[in-house]
Amino acid sequence: MTHQSPNAGESRLDRGKRVLAEIDGEAGHKVIAALQDIAPDFATYILEFPFGDIYSRPGLDLRAREIATIAALTAMGNATPQLKVHIEAGLNVGLTREEVIEIIIQMAVYAGFPAALNGLFAAKEVFAARGLSLGEQG
Amino acid sequence: MTHQSPNAGESRLDRGKRVLAEIDGEAGHKVIAALQDIAPDFATYILEFPFGDIYSRPGLDLRAREIATIAALTAMGNATPQLKVHIEAGLNVGLTREEVIEIIIQMAVYAGFPAALNGLFAAKEVFAARGLSLGEQG
Amino acid sequence: MTHQSPNAGESRLDRGKRVLAEIDGEAGHKVIAALQDIAPDFATYILEFPFGDIYSRPGLDLRAREIATIAALTAMGNATPQLKVHIEAGLNVGLTREEVIEIIIQMAVYAGFPAALNGLFAAKEVFAARGLSLGEQG
Amino acid sequence: MTHQSPNAGESRLDRGKRVLAEIDGEAGHKVIAALQDIAPDFATYILEFPFGDIYSRPGLDLRAREIATIAALTAMGNATPQLKVHIEAGLNVGLTREEVIEIIIQMAVYAGFPAALNGLFAAKEVFAARGLSLGEQG
Amino acid sequence: MTHQSPNAGESRLDRGKRVLAEIDGEAGHKVIAALQDIAPDFATYILEFPFGDIYSRPGLDLRAREIATIAALTAMGNATPQLKVHIEAGLNVGLTREEVIEIIIQMAVYAGFPAALNGLFAAKEVFAARGLSLGEQG
Amino acid sequence: MTHQSPNAGESRLDRGKRVLAEIDGEAGHKVIAALQDIAPDFATYILEFPFGDIYSRPGLDLRAREIATIAALTAMGNATPQLKVHIEAGLNVGLTREEVIEIIIQMAVYAGFPAALNGLFAAKEVFAARGLSLGEQG
Repeated sequence: MTHQSPNAGESRLDRGKRVLAEIDGEAGHKVIAALQDIAPDFATYILEFPFGDIYSRPGLDLRAREIATIAALTAMGNATPQLKVHIEAGLNVGLTREEVIEIIIQMAVYAGFPAALNGLFAAKEVFAARGLSLGEQG
Repeated sequence: MTHQSPNAGESRLDRGKRVLAEIDGEAGHKVIAALQDIAPDFATYILEFPFGDIYSRPGLDLRAREIATIAALTAMGNATPQLKVHIEAGLNVGLTREEVIEIIIQMAVYAGFPAALNGLFAAKEVFAARGLSLGEQG
Repeated sequence: MTHQSPNAGESRLDRGKRVLAEIDGEAGHKVIAALQDIAPDFATYILEFPFGDIYSRPGLDLRAREIATIAALTAMGNATPQLKVHIEAGLNVGLTREEVIEIIIQMAVYAGFPAALNGLFAAKEVFAARGLSLGEQG
Repeated sequence: MTHQSPNAGESRLDRGKRVLAEIDGEAGHKVIAALQDIAPDFATYILEFPFGDIYSRPGLDLRAREIATIAALTAMGNATPQLKVHIEAGLNVGLTREEVIEIIIQMAVYAGFPAALNGLFAAKEVFAARGLSLGEQG
Repeated sequence: MTHQSPNAGESRLDRGKRVLAEIDGEAGHKVIAALQDIAPDFATYILEFPFGDIYSRPGLDLRAREIATIAALTAMGNATPQLKVHIEAGLNVGLTREEVIEIIIQMAVYAGFPAALNGLFAAKEVFAARGLSLGEQG
Repeated sequence: MTHQSPNAGESRLDRGKRVLAEIDGEAGHKVIAALQDIAPDFATYILEFPFGDIYSRPGLDLRAREIATIAALTAMGNATPQLKVHIEAGLNVGLTREEVIEIIIQMAVYAGFPAALNGLFAAKEVFAARGLSLGEQG
């Protein structure tokens, strides 16, 4: 059974918590925690809709989903904290560092060189924090 | 030999023409043709940089590259003609219609419901023009 | 009991249908219908999350919510069909045409004159389709 | 007489100074001051056009105008300093913290979850700087 | 006396009308006229602020100002009608068609190939409507 | 021979290095260096395409090209590091500080006051780092 498979009787919130933990790990938990004193309902929505509903859908695997998210956040260029979380998430679900870099480089074509450049520097920070050299897994 | 493999001695322009034909087919040729009387050099750049340089890179297969592009163009929301070309391209390189729709739906999370909605209607037009019902390949 | 009040035992989907009908009327139904042959699940998400969850929240009345949405869609400038639906929605929940125009004009300050200009022309189309002269209610 | 009412014989610049002081308070003055050694004419334009012309218009009250501005700046996602100034401004003209949070949460629907998330964290900083707990006025 | 020089005693509105006529010609008048039944005050603001204040400033000539505007509107990618007006305006104040095309091509670097492509097609329409072949003045 | 003139037999990469050095100086070299351990191929693309291909084109002088780039990056509002590099570049190729400020102020019309304001503060930082008062060359 793959990670995305819904469990019988599982609520959207429980499924969202499970999928968030699997994809985003520690970084996801920090976002949820940081919302508790300002907008706890929004933390619930994040668990329920993006993770409980969307990432749990069976039609696309998590690797493909993270390719899509890294591409979009790089291209939009105004959500660097979320891009970093999803570069981490991409590595967590099986993308290599080289693949993450390929996705970001490609965005130069669609959103311009500054968007790609800022995406690469975000990746550089994430990779450095994980402490492995480029070329090693995750 | 995969489609992306560089051929020895092939120029960037020739490689770009080959990769464009493989990915975008007729839709790509139309864009190149439409530029001839206004900016033929830009047509050359499109062949050379996005297709001759980027899509020809070996680190990510074309299926993954089109996932990234469909995601980014849906999220940006201001390049509908190019989104349609790349929905076609995605189908050409092996994405199913269901996968295209999954990618676009996911963009509601990152770029909002209107971006996803407009992306879905663009996909609907592309699918209709190809004349097959949803569920059939390509 | 205001329109936003949750009914005991009502599902998110049912609440979303009720709130959509109240806010968007015919225009909302058309969007939901147009999705049925391409992405029916996304129609469900629209009913459940924006309408069943967000617009149903008690902390802000629908008039204020439509002010926010008209402002945002005008400023973003890449979602004209949705802007028109929400200009209609704004009139449905009690904004006057003059108020809609004030909101859009104000966006020139934050998103530039072209965004405001295109928003005003969208409003002109919506008003014309409703067939009343400026100054009359709704 | 409301704050927005034009005073007879008042220049655009004087009216803008009066309205800026009323809406933005100290934060507005800091922006104007910071421009003096780089672009003093632009400081004058800010006073004259957004404040002297737009916010002074009688067709929409300041509470509604700040709802519109907070929504737009959250959705655009690339103007955090100005979003913070207008979260303050919203509180100054009568929005509660809960209402500010509702507006920002709603933007997840139109501009995506990252835009709303970054808006909420901006609000958290503004609220912390004002030193009152959530739930207290302003 | 250059076109931008302020005339003694001229109001912002009169100066704006004069500068708009000089830069935008017929296309500018159409925009102003189209606003009369929906938001006549906004027409006045367009004359007063962009044209009466900004384009009238002496520190940059109109050719340079139109280079800036064509670049920005191409890069933003969500204001095609205004981009067309300013391609016309650029030709009116002395840019050649080749220069307009150079500016738009350059935007591929900063905003991506789709933005440049859509800008080039907008230019193609403007040039066709003016009825001269590429290479002739204006 | 002007700086943009292609030298016979020069490769795109060599021409790009020469043009980058001329336009961006130290700031450009830092970007190229920072990419070496994360995406050295992307550094090559920056040299080859924007600088070797686009900025080397003869149809528009470098002063005009930097006007276009400063305008676009100010309007886009999500690429501050690149905006700073190009404010420097503009000064390097002959724009005065006053002209840079005029370009940025003008963007208030097309992209809103926050975009212009943030652009002015970026310029203020660049000018301060260069250590000359406003009014002096470069």
